[in-house]
Amino acid sequence: MIKTVAFDADDTLWHNEPLYSETTERFRRLLSAYHSPQWIGERLYETETRNLQHYGYGIKSFTLSMIETAIELTEGRIKGSEIQEILRFAKEMLQAPVRLLDHAAETVKRLAESYELMIITKGDLFDQESKVARSGLGDYFAAVEIVTEKDPQTYRAVASKSGVEMREFLMVGDSLKSDVLPVLEAGGHAIYVPYATPWQHETVPAEVASRYDFMRAGSIREIPGIIEELAAAN
Amino acid sequence: MIKTVAFDADDTLWHNEPLYSETTERFRRLLSAYHSPQWIGERLYETETRNLQHYGYGIKSFTLSMIETAIELTEGRIKGSEIQEILRFAKEMLQAPVRLLDHAAETVKRLAESYELMIITKGDLFDQESKVARSGLGDYFAAVEIVTEKDPQTYRAVASKSGVEMREFLMVGDSLKSDVLPVLEAGGHAIYVPYATPWQHETVPAEVASRYDFMRAGSIREIPGIIEELAAAN
Repeated sequence: MIKTVAFDADDTLWHNEPLYSETTERFRRLLSAYHSPQWIGERLYETETRNLQHYGYGIKSFTLSMIETAIELTEGRIKGSEIQEILRFAKEMLQAPVRLLDHAAETVKRLAESYELMIITKGDLFDQESKVARSGLGDYFAAVEIVTEKDPQTYRAVASKSGVEMREFLMVGDSLKSDVLPVLEAGGHAIYVPYATPWQHETVPAEVASRYDFMRAGSIREIPGIIEELAAAN
Repeated sequence: MIKTVAFDADDTLWHNEPLYSETTERFRRLLSAYHSPQWIGERLYETETRNLQHYGYGIKSFTLSMIETAIELTEGRIKGSEIQEILRFAKEMLQAPVRLLDHAAETVKRLAESYELMIITKGDLFDQESKVARSGLGDYFAAVEIVTEKDPQTYRAVASKSGVEMREFLMVGDSLKSDVLPVLEAGGHAIYVPYATPWQHETVPAEVASRYDFMRAGSIREIPGIIEELAAAN
């Protein structure tokens, strides 16, 4: 019944959130002479949210938002050497090793024996392709789709391009907003595997989530069993 | 014989280079108190080239390179307000109106009656999708592929995904290096339509170009006629 299993990438196959929270922490320390850590964090989050419409997602966008925040918070008193430090954060983020989640590699290999696998992820094209290559898992995926928005229309387009019906399509991801609810709306299946520390930009109010009937797993290793149960129930 | 006509986007369908050269000029003026315009331009070009491996192509990458160059050239003496000015350049570039090349709209509409059309472009996913949408031409293209590298393998993969043979595939673009030579190597057809001011990163030595037998047009409006001649000759 399920033919294609698609995975989100960041915080579903490999760790991503810690890279942003560690860099945010370094950013707070860098500006600690000017403001309180909490104030700096709030202003950065505000700048990021405001800039999503201009920059989209990814490390380069985040870096431009850090620089913008640093200038605003210091009323232009920030030093060149401090901005250089922010550029160094960016290059370190871009080159950080790809750390797979526990059981991600074995689960992907096992699922690849029975299903066509896909990665569907938002973010920066250049950065995401580089992470897929460095993950060592690239060969298990028939397609890697990097998209700007994850809405029902996106999922329908991706499925149709691969010649799969939505009822044969299952998405696995850590975001209710991006990986689960739009797939259900498009007529597909989805398994929610929450990450330890969810990303602030992607939270969904409980009253919205409760209107949907989705499957949930505590770890990616539970996915093959859940799909088998789903097939047996139909 | 030709089934699919694929277009590069920047400087093939719409003007792009002037946006970068105008911004480079503003950048030179911004730093004119510190260095000579020529020196500033050369250092920026060096930084951009060095950063391609970290950042890839696009406006966000270019902006991060401008900031890095400004800090290095001023030995950190650059003011926060000057870096803020560079961020303003970036937002203006991202929001700049999409200016189609002369005859691009009419040619695309005409070709869409007889061929499957595609856009294949490098650059930043978010920015390129936004430009396709703002160009008003999006509906004429069956597929828009934004890729990190334009090599023979990329073209083979894109053609295969659309179920077209390379001998039925024709690419139109302003870069010999990215749009013409790799397509010929992959067994397809290509028409070179040079842009008024070629992009420094994409030049090909004459002795390399001379080894290839490619078609050339002075304007995009010549494309339908060239394809008809190509069909008649076979």
